[in-house]
Amino acid sequence: MTITFPPLPSSKTELEDAGAFTPRFDEAGLVTAIVTDYSDGELLMVAHMNAEALALTIETGIAHYFSRSRNKIWKKGETSGNLQTVVELLTDCDQDAVWLKVRVAGHDASCHTGRRSCFYRSVKLVDGRAMTEIVDGKRHFDPHSIYQGSGT
Amino acid sequence: MTITFPPLPSSKTELEDAGAFTPRFDEAGLVTAIVTDYSDGELLMVAHMNAEALALTIETGIAHYFSRSRNKIWKKGETSGNLQTVVELLTDCDQDAVWLKVRVAGHDASCHTGRRSCFYRSVKLVDGRAMTEIVDGKRHFDPHSIYQGSGT
Repeated sequence: MTITFPPLPSSKTELEDAGAFTPRFDEAGLVTAIVTDYSDGELLMVAHMNAEALALTIETGIAHYFSRSRNKIWKKGETSGNLQTVVELLTDCDQDAVWLKVRVAGHDASCHTGRRSCFYRSVKLVDGRAMTEIVDGKRHFDPHSIYQGSGT
Repeated sequence: MTITFPPLPSSKTELEDAGAFTPRFDEAGLVTAIVTDYSDGELLMVAHMNAEALALTIETGIAHYFSRSRNKIWKKGETSGNLQTVVELLTDCDQDAVWLKVRVAGHDASCHTGRRSCFYRSVKLVDGRAMTEIVDGKRHFDPHSIYQGSGT
């Protein structure tokens, strides 16, 4: 990692304007990353990035995240081949989230279940209970044959 | 709030399948909410929801969040008039995030700066430094005249 991020500006105006990118990491040192497909805007997944993952992503143009469950940097698609090339990276008003517009390689799938998007279920009220229903059941790959205990 | 959420299922398979919606709240009792415009899929904002905000959203069809800075439930648009009507609500594979597809009332703006989206800046490397650049400068309302110390 060669790039570093400057400390937060002292004023809200500066934080919300154009200028140096000063990501606002939370107490765990993470920002939220929202990932959509550049081709049609479909929401693919939500993940987290620490400073190293964010710097690697900006420098290499390939999405890197921080896996909270494995407690390490995670180059998305390293196992499955579904690498994400970042076409555009945006940040929000308070700089605690980034939006990655990506092109997905490999199986064109970003969910470890083999689906294109992690958001393959809708939530509906049924008899006063919130229930999930699968709206995209298509598996682009077989997770059992791709992953051997990992999920990248 | 009348609906409640059952405890997490014991198996990952059950968590990832159709069935009862069992949101996986983090240590602070929150899930991440990604909000896009139903009409064209534009990413508008990222926020957080506790169980009460999530239940209110599902029950009323109007987006409610939990403000971490104000430490209270936040009915989006209550001050600005930019209420968000939820057309569809989805959840991701591990149920720690929800995706709201909404129609925005009022000024058709979801950012407290007056812009349509909170993601109005792109990030680019300039001479080895990560810099932000405004890609959507249009203000749909004047935040100073709308908000009197709040930002909803």
